[in-house]
Amino acid sequence: MGHPYAPAELQLPGYVPLQLSQSQILAPYLGTSLLLVLAIWLVSGRCRGLSKIDRLLMCWWAFTGLTHIVIEGTFVFAPGFFRKENPNYFDELWKEYSKGDSRYVARDTATLTVEAITAVLEGPASLLAVYAIASHKSYSHILQFTVCLGQLYGCLVYFITAYLDGFNFWVSPFYFWAYFIGANSFWVWIPTLIAMRSWKKICAAFRAEKLQMPQSEGQRQL
Amino acid sequence: MGHPYAPAELQLPGYVPLQLSQSQILAPYLGTSLLLVLAIWLVSGRCRGLSKIDRLLMCWWAFTGLTHIVIEGTFVFAPGFFRKENPNYFDELWKEYSKGDSRYVARDTATLTVEAITAVLEGPASLLAVYAIASHKSYSHILQFTVCLGQLYGCLVYFITAYLDGFNFWVSPFYFWAYFIGANSFWVWIPTLIAMRSWKKICAAFRAEKLQMPQSEGQRQL
Repeated sequence: MGHPYAPAELQLPGYVPLQLSQSQILAPYLGTSLLLVLAIWLVSGRCRGLSKIDRLLMCWWAFTGLTHIVIEGTFVFAPGFFRKENPNYFDELWKEYSKGDSRYVARDTATLTVEAITAVLEGPASLLAVYAIASHKSYSHILQFTVCLGQLYGCLVYFITAYLDGFNFWVSPFYFWAYFIGANSFWVWIPTLIAMRSWKKICAAFRAEKLQMPQSEGQRQL
Repeated sequence: MGHPYAPAELQLPGYVPLQLSQSQILAPYLGTSLLLVLAIWLVSGRCRGLSKIDRLLMCWWAFTGLTHIVIEGTFVFAPGFFRKENPNYFDELWKEYSKGDSRYVARDTATLTVEAITAVLEGPASLLAVYAIASHKSYSHILQFTVCLGQLYGCLVYFITAYLDGFNFWVSPFYFWAYFIGANSFWVWIPTLIAMRSWKKICAAFRAEKLQMPQSEGQRQL
């Protein structure tokens, strides 16, 4: 049985063809995500002292955390998803995404490693960030910064290894731009913006601490 | 011409045998590093307001930054170092290290990617950390934390890909423990300790800022 992926010489013995359409795969993911974001937005409106940016960040961290754990986690812990006789929704999703990057069906080592780190470490840490923002924890910014750096390092490894390995893993330019570049770009620009914001907040906290210090030393001397 | 690396089926056409001994390779690296650390320790003693821990950290960041740029940078930008007719010191060093991990001579994609990120981004950032500590910059802790996370993410990718790709890249248990585990372990436990320290300092700065805030709000009301 042949497969639709690139490069054509890729061997996928036992490949079971994709049965769901692109919209049957995208709609549940986008629909569920929208509901989740709406729910977090409404619930966070009842928390005390949260700015609109805090609430937007909570929506993002809930969305990205569940994507890491549920969607990417399924890939990590389901080797051979492409040859399952009765594929579930996630198996179908990864067969669809592989049209934009066949390293997923091929179970490329670097891709699997980045996905494993993302699903196991960054997923739970993203959900912790939702809680940290809601409860104004002192570790809120450094935690968000940590997850953003992990996501950015993961994207770097993901794109550089694709380049070094030949840059020929997509069925057509459409899938290259829509899946490989388009879908992943959200995990480049959003973490970049959040990391920059947290960096600035952290520097501001140290400047405030510095200003405060000579003052309290002065008070001690009185 | 055969090669000494594992696995034996690895193809390295044009391999030029190693000419320097292990001690001829280690002595210049360790000697230069020791001189560098001594120089930073002495010079930093003349900077105002630096604790002994700050000065030790400056030594570490100078050492690790130059290792990233000079040693790892040479690997990244010298493809085919193993077949050079007149190998330089760095070519010889990487041929020696490859006894503990043949993915270096084989120019494995994931290994090369991690080394490229380390040499190009983390190397210069480490040197910036030396300056940031010396001049008490407000970004000192978040910068050190950033580089530590990069080093730890790199080590994770390095070790996980080795495991997934068969875990058979060393000539003997000696090279496994001395090079693959031993040499790399410094870039696991030292960044872990520094990242934990910076995390705590950053949280403390936010707690101090929080304590300060109601007070200044109160003053504003007066």
